[in-house]
Amino acid sequence: MTRERTKSIAFVLYPGTSPLDLVGPLTVLRDLKLGTPYRSVVVSARVKEIASDTPLGLVPARTFEDLPRPFALFVPGGAGAGEAVRDGALVSYVRTAAATAEIVGSVGNGSLVLGAAGLLAGRRVAAHWAYADALEAYGARYATDRWVEDGKFLTAAGSAAGIDAMLHLTARLRSASAARLAQLWMEYDPQPPFGRPDPSDRDAGLRGAILARRAPAAAPAGGIGHGAT
Amino acid sequence: MTRERTKSIAFVLYPGTSPLDLVGPLTVLRDLKLGTPYRSVVVSARVKEIASDTPLGLVPARTFEDLPRPFALFVPGGAGAGEAVRDGALVSYVRTAAATAEIVGSVGNGSLVLGAAGLLAGRRVAAHWAYADALEAYGARYATDRWVEDGKFLTAAGSAAGIDAMLHLTARLRSASAARLAQLWMEYDPQPPFGRPDPSDRDAGLRGAILARRAPAAAPAGGIGHGAT
Repeated sequence: MTRERTKSIAFVLYPGTSPLDLVGPLTVLRDLKLGTPYRSVVVSARVKEIASDTPLGLVPARTFEDLPRPFALFVPGGAGAGEAVRDGALVSYVRTAAATAEIVGSVGNGSLVLGAAGLLAGRRVAAHWAYADALEAYGARYATDRWVEDGKFLTAAGSAAGIDAMLHLTARLRSASAARLAQLWMEYDPQPPFGRPDPSDRDAGLRGAILARRAPAAAPAGGIGHGAT
Repeated sequence: MTRERTKSIAFVLYPGTSPLDLVGPLTVLRDLKLGTPYRSVVVSARVKEIASDTPLGLVPARTFEDLPRPFALFVPGGAGAGEAVRDGALVSYVRTAAATAEIVGSVGNGSLVLGAAGLLAGRRVAAHWAYADALEAYGARYATDRWVEDGKFLTAAGSAAGIDAMLHLTARLRSASAARLAQLWMEYDPQPPFGRPDPSDRDAGLRGAILARRAPAAAPAGGIGHGAT
């Protein structure tokens, strides 16, 4: 209804969302101060507290019904993504909102929800590395890039990669200067004390520990009722 | 009461908290899976939704009264920090909890709340670069480091720096391997599309734009009622 005036950038929230997947992008866009017409909006089935996959409750601002046709739609990842792909109302919203959205994206394993909505067949998609197989079960081609643009789809690798993808989007929607401003404001100048992580490295112990803790693998299309979890 | 069994790492939540300052550390600690005895807990004056400085509501798990003696205490930054330093209940909690905590820290301009509690006089402190002057009004010595340890105080630069500081803490409390696991899981392998930000650079336009948007400067000790904001 308000689409002519405001271009909403919608972030879908579900139980077990990883807050970093959501908050990294929101922080970039906050700092962007795009002003009219862009506005970030967190949407869910209902406006009530939703548990994240950390000890912090999150509260959306709008329901799916409130925002049927966002300008852009993003699905964050999280330990709950394996359940989210079986949530009919959520997947249905993602499918219908994506049909008219000009930009559709995900962070981490939020890509599985896009896959469950039937949006990723044949596309190159970035995602959390631990979910590459589950993603390919939806017909997507997993890419190891930090983020990938394929048509109107902008997908990011795990959690923190959402920040990089959103800096890129900020530059595209407004300017490189705006992206640099956001980055300076949020001091996104990482100095990880143990250097860069490398999922392709041969530290089998690290990789195995993460894979063992991974959220239940998503059911591939048609796999609802498979009995997992 | 439960301190003998559980070592709580408390994060203080107040209106206008920057969610990244809080969620970055929570994500590192989630992935740490410290297990017993460490537990992250988000605390505030009341257990109810609190507005962040993005379009996302946050819900703490416990009240200040519930957790009088946490093992560690951290104060995130945010646009609301300038108000938080005038919140008597909050500052009083920080002061008393810090007295018995083994680790006390902050992210971004959360350091101002530590300053308002009288904890930083003479200490070297990292903080968001835009608040260096406000911090020094509390007697602290601002450091440009990504994070600083001075005695039991562990302070981080702006927002995203909380991740780096918490990776360091993870290594200290458990192991470098645990920190690397957290980093790989959250894909903290930044590839900012416009390179590193540099607050010391000579791009006066960027610096000026941020300083103009800065939250109201905190009142120095004794300045409550100064009428600012």
